[in-house]
Amino acid sequence: MKTKLHDTWNSGGGAVNGWLSAPNPVIAEVTGKAGFDSVTIDLQHGLNDYQAALSMLQALAASDSTPMARVPWLEPGIIMKLLDAGALGIICPMVNTAADAARLVHYANYAPVGSRSFGPTRAMLVHGADYFAKANDTVITLAMVETAEALENVKAIAQTPGLTGVYIGPSDLALSMGHVPKLDPDEPAVVEAVGRILGACKDAGRRCGIHCLAPAYAKRMLDTGFDLVTLGSDIRIYSAACASAIAEARG
Amino acid sequence: MKTKLHDTWNSGGGAVNGWLSAPNPVIAEVTGKAGFDSVTIDLQHGLNDYQAALSMLQALAASDSTPMARVPWLEPGIIMKLLDAGALGIICPMVNTAADAARLVHYANYAPVGSRSFGPTRAMLVHGADYFAKANDTVITLAMVETAEALENVKAIAQTPGLTGVYIGPSDLALSMGHVPKLDPDEPAVVEAVGRILGACKDAGRRCGIHCLAPAYAKRMLDTGFDLVTLGSDIRIYSAACASAIAEARG
Amino acid sequence: MKTKLHDTWNSGGGAVNGWLSAPNPVIAEVTGKAGFDSVTIDLQHGLNDYQAALSMLQALAASDSTPMARVPWLEPGIIMKLLDAGALGIICPMVNTAADAARLVHYANYAPVGSRSFGPTRAMLVHGADYFAKANDTVITLAMVETAEALENVKAIAQTPGLTGVYIGPSDLALSMGHVPKLDPDEPAVVEAVGRILGACKDAGRRCGIHCLAPAYAKRMLDTGFDLVTLGSDIRIYSAACASAIAEARG
Amino acid sequence: MKTKLHDTWNSGGGAVNGWLSAPNPVIAEVTGKAGFDSVTIDLQHGLNDYQAALSMLQALAASDSTPMARVPWLEPGIIMKLLDAGALGIICPMVNTAADAARLVHYANYAPVGSRSFGPTRAMLVHGADYFAKANDTVITLAMVETAEALENVKAIAQTPGLTGVYIGPSDLALSMGHVPKLDPDEPAVVEAVGRILGACKDAGRRCGIHCLAPAYAKRMLDTGFDLVTLGSDIRIYSAACASAIAEARG
Amino acid sequence: MKTKLHDTWNSGGGAVNGWLSAPNPVIAEVTGKAGFDSVTIDLQHGLNDYQAALSMLQALAASDSTPMARVPWLEPGIIMKLLDAGALGIICPMVNTAADAARLVHYANYAPVGSRSFGPTRAMLVHGADYFAKANDTVITLAMVETAEALENVKAIAQTPGLTGVYIGPSDLALSMGHVPKLDPDEPAVVEAVGRILGACKDAGRRCGIHCLAPAYAKRMLDTGFDLVTLGSDIRIYSAACASAIAEARG
Amino acid sequence: MKTKLHDTWNSGGGAVNGWLSAPNPVIAEVTGKAGFDSVTIDLQHGLNDYQAALSMLQALAASDSTPMARVPWLEPGIIMKLLDAGALGIICPMVNTAADAARLVHYANYAPVGSRSFGPTRAMLVHGADYFAKANDTVITLAMVETAEALENVKAIAQTPGLTGVYIGPSDLALSMGHVPKLDPDEPAVVEAVGRILGACKDAGRRCGIHCLAPAYAKRMLDTGFDLVTLGSDIRIYSAACASAIAEARG
Repeated sequence: MKTKLHDTWNSGGGAVNGWLSAPNPVIAEVTGKAGFDSVTIDLQHGLNDYQAALSMLQALAASDSTPMARVPWLEPGIIMKLLDAGALGIICPMVNTAADAARLVHYANYAPVGSRSFGPTRAMLVHGADYFAKANDTVITLAMVETAEALENVKAIAQTPGLTGVYIGPSDLALSMGHVPKLDPDEPAVVEAVGRILGACKDAGRRCGIHCLAPAYAKRMLDTGFDLVTLGSDIRIYSAACASAIAEARG
Repeated sequence: MKTKLHDTWNSGGGAVNGWLSAPNPVIAEVTGKAGFDSVTIDLQHGLNDYQAALSMLQALAASDSTPMARVPWLEPGIIMKLLDAGALGIICPMVNTAADAARLVHYANYAPVGSRSFGPTRAMLVHGADYFAKANDTVITLAMVETAEALENVKAIAQTPGLTGVYIGPSDLALSMGHVPKLDPDEPAVVEAVGRILGACKDAGRRCGIHCLAPAYAKRMLDTGFDLVTLGSDIRIYSAACASAIAEARG
Repeated sequence: MKTKLHDTWNSGGGAVNGWLSAPNPVIAEVTGKAGFDSVTIDLQHGLNDYQAALSMLQALAASDSTPMARVPWLEPGIIMKLLDAGALGIICPMVNTAADAARLVHYANYAPVGSRSFGPTRAMLVHGADYFAKANDTVITLAMVETAEALENVKAIAQTPGLTGVYIGPSDLALSMGHVPKLDPDEPAVVEAVGRILGACKDAGRRCGIHCLAPAYAKRMLDTGFDLVTLGSDIRIYSAACASAIAEARG
Repeated sequence: MKTKLHDTWNSGGGAVNGWLSAPNPVIAEVTGKAGFDSVTIDLQHGLNDYQAALSMLQALAASDSTPMARVPWLEPGIIMKLLDAGALGIICPMVNTAADAARLVHYANYAPVGSRSFGPTRAMLVHGADYFAKANDTVITLAMVETAEALENVKAIAQTPGLTGVYIGPSDLALSMGHVPKLDPDEPAVVEAVGRILGACKDAGRRCGIHCLAPAYAKRMLDTGFDLVTLGSDIRIYSAACASAIAEARG
Repeated sequence: MKTKLHDTWNSGGGAVNGWLSAPNPVIAEVTGKAGFDSVTIDLQHGLNDYQAALSMLQALAASDSTPMARVPWLEPGIIMKLLDAGALGIICPMVNTAADAARLVHYANYAPVGSRSFGPTRAMLVHGADYFAKANDTVITLAMVETAEALENVKAIAQTPGLTGVYIGPSDLALSMGHVPKLDPDEPAVVEAVGRILGACKDAGRRCGIHCLAPAYAKRMLDTGFDLVTLGSDIRIYSAACASAIAEARG
Repeated sequence: MKTKLHDTWNSGGGAVNGWLSAPNPVIAEVTGKAGFDSVTIDLQHGLNDYQAALSMLQALAASDSTPMARVPWLEPGIIMKLLDAGALGIICPMVNTAADAARLVHYANYAPVGSRSFGPTRAMLVHGADYFAKANDTVITLAMVETAEALENVKAIAQTPGLTGVYIGPSDLALSMGHVPKLDPDEPAVVEAVGRILGACKDAGRRCGIHCLAPAYAKRMLDTGFDLVTLGSDIRIYSAACASAIAEARG
């Protein structure tokens, strides 16, 4: 199976994650060739659904980057479908309790760990005939901690058996705490909350990722000990680069 | 009809053109909101065909940028289809003679100027009930001068009645002249050829555009008198920005 | 943001709503140019899913009609995805209790009103950089009252804090009451129920809409005080017009 | 093979033809159920390309209406592809000479009549294992006479061996004759030209069709002796019906 | 309505079911012409979602095989959408209790049997104007018994009022019982469980189907009394045939 | 670049080629994993166009099989587009003269060999930054000899400078010679013609391929000296396997 993300982590490094909001396999293929450790197809706020994600997973198959997906909601159908389609990691939004996190683990793992239904149609085709034997050890589950409620439960969430780790959504976290939603937070209360989540993960021996915007901020997060940082999204990167190029061309 | 490109030209300015290689209406919509004077859907080297172009023209409809298309080849079918779908300009590759340029004008204009078949299904829907009356005056035709043969014929090409202007493809021009194909040419012979083409257009009172890569080079071309510069493409801009962001995040 | 629907309502008028069952952005664009106050993409009984709806929302972007969507079921994932994709209103089927209605409001509004997750990827692109600030005040929520159970709870449903109003599905309402399902009801019990729902909305100071078939019936509903009437659907309008045209041509 | 169109003609009747401009199999399926003798997918001015046409031919397979296609231009590739995909008739635009008409026949028929390449992948699947044996006798070829040049050559065009008949495009014909392009012509010169084309077909024992807009005009054409009349298009029928319904609902 | 499956059952025979994992209407159309009694579009482990299923249902419309769909999960939205799109049977995974089975029946039937929402947009178009009157009697519901929990509840599940029958997923059943997941089970405990499920169906007078791989195994299951056997899937059949053909060609 | 086909040839072996008629990237991916030396996407008789081919080329990227495409006709636009999209070989139908073959070479090679326009958007992404330097040496061109006229010119065709070889279409060849079109010919005159073509290729030192149906026939052709044999198509292989499996299951 593809394990660039595991390789990076196992070598003690922090991973840089690409983010696909546009429903397009060509952009996915370009992103796959860009050098990210992992690339996540966003089915929540990204403009993707299952069929788009399938074509994007195909487009990522020739790259080294580990393919992951963020699901729209904590529901078994879409989690299992994306894994069957070849995603090797699931980022799940709005995990507010340890029970939520346990459900995520349950849906993403085969018995006896969980109750994932068997039928890895594309996963077996692209990840190998021994997919079933390796799946539970390979598939990554990241629970999003992004509400005040989740913040209170973060220790229990981080300790959920079988969970790979936690992924922080700073915008929703800020919004839930009464602040304006934005990435790369500098509001002291939000910064403190981010630190608290990271600490809970470290205590529990779990991975911790965070969605960033500016590469410099992402670098700072990696230096702080985060295991994974996301760099905005395809749309954000592209539109910012367009604006900058147009301004330069017009002088 | 949309005339941001005409407005820029009429006010004496040079236009900055976006370029769509990825077959995706979401990227097209983002590009449409980025502030380009015009946006060209590339059906030649871009990964687009008619159906992709149609969805992208729809996605560009709410933006101010003038929608154009580069066709794969000098053929009446696809030129007329793209105009019927709402494109307001056609860039045509490999125009090597004045006769080629005359055919381009012929296909893109209604009688008595040309022989465009009548049936502006979407063009009339989005550009107004008076589309037929305005079409010949509005639709832009740019003939690509990009071979040694075309270079010899550039005066005649530039003077083709009804042609809006010439668009330079530096890569093919260099290749045809025996050099390595690349954008933003610095090879003296190619630079001289580019200057000769621009001069022929100025002499004929026609527009002259050029495909660029670096914004700084594009700015220089605008300063030199070009009427339109293209900034790489969606894929080039995005992949360069990804590489830069990853490098910065990894420190 | 687009507010033709609000404008119509604020000026004291009743709105005429178009309805898209066919999964096609060209038909959506034609509908957007037809002059409706709002156009609703139907993801329940219409043949649409998210990806189709996205392309249709893009196709509606250049029209004045307010874009809305009917979701397949009261579920947070699809409601939030459609709002992020740019829909400005949500019609939700099978809202049977005030608790159901409260969940609809909850999913469609940002904190502190609700728990909508932040990430308006396309909404911010097309509705403006201040989308977040305006979203809760702009997004329309219409709860479908279409069962006998909902009829009993209609007062409580109509009074749900934050709910824009109620939308009547006459077919399901009739079916649930033991009658044959059909639009433009004339069965006295169903007619009486429709009147009761309208009354509950008026008492609560909320909008009330109804799905109609014949334009004449729709006009009558507007005259009766309804705030919004839907005219069949794209498929119904087109197939009826075909039948009529064929019959006339054949004499 | 499907022969509703042949049946109508063989019984001495005139056929009513549906016209698909929107690239959508659902609208195609609805049109297929509407009762037309034949349904034509328009790849010239319609917003369709091959892949859209394929899905629409699939959607028409369960209907009785004979599926046909109008190609963008007189080119062998697309004509043969549409026949292989199951179209049973080809309407070809801009046939200006008898040589053009002969090429159309050549491309659409197997040896020894023509040079159609063998490989009826879907045609054999849906029209039967004996497709090859019946194809030349079944496939309909209609040459569009729609320019002043074609008008001069109409006798020779109509007499082209193997050609089924002629299809009149009134808009282009008017435009080419110096008039404003429109359907349902009333300009005496254009009306006279239409009559001349019909006469040439009758003399040659060939079918003659015409593109109409108003059902009443179409009926008149059938009464005049036309073998086939087209009723506008899906987009025209639908948008006219929307406008009428909205006006009635608003009172 | 299409009733080849009912016909086979009513004549005392066992049905052979095709299975579509690839999201493609052309493969669906080929499968529809292959001679299966029924063809099931798999939206759980197959690489299909709603929009793919819709195009495949259109492609199946001209065949005799009864079209069915397996849903990703026991959820009302997708079940109703597939029925509205023309599926005549629903196979539902992970039905573990009689209450689960009752919900399946409830979602798939109109009042008074269930609570299916009325709006058979495509179903009425292709199955006839009397679709509503016949729907409850025609639509097939098959509950998947594929866990140890379901096995314990199999009698109650099989006796659920309104349920057509049970469909066995041997892979998940084996996995849930602590064995390696695979089709065509030979593990005694799994074989015994399969027999127990079949027996429970026979006792309850309900249909029983099973997912098989090898045709010979499927034949054995039919001989044992199963009412329906599935032959692997399009992808399994095709990839096995490719491997065999390549080996033979290479000698 | 991918060179499994070159490797097979360079090692003295004959290649087994897969053939994609269904427009579907999932079937393409399955085919890519099946073990063929090369896989050809058929845009002539296959149900594919450019956009389908692009998605299929993406799906083939993670396989070892060399991706090729058959174009609908000898036209520069589509040949160059497919090469830019990553195809490494072009099979061109209806090459009847040496001049036709020279045009094929011309369109598929960069200067100074030919006139291919520069812009390998996806080819460079997936085949490497040095794509331009290697393209002319890597891209395969196979001219289809499949008419009586081509048979007469086969020596000259085979000797065309820069041409990789010839590909025989037995069905069209037979049809053009006055026989029933079919694969795996046994008609003596057709068999003799096939032998003559093979001989002309051997004399000219060029590759020779042939489209076969039965694996045993393909093996015989490899034994006879053919460099490449195609095994029917995805649709043919799958439908034959379905028929066989159904028959066996029904006993």
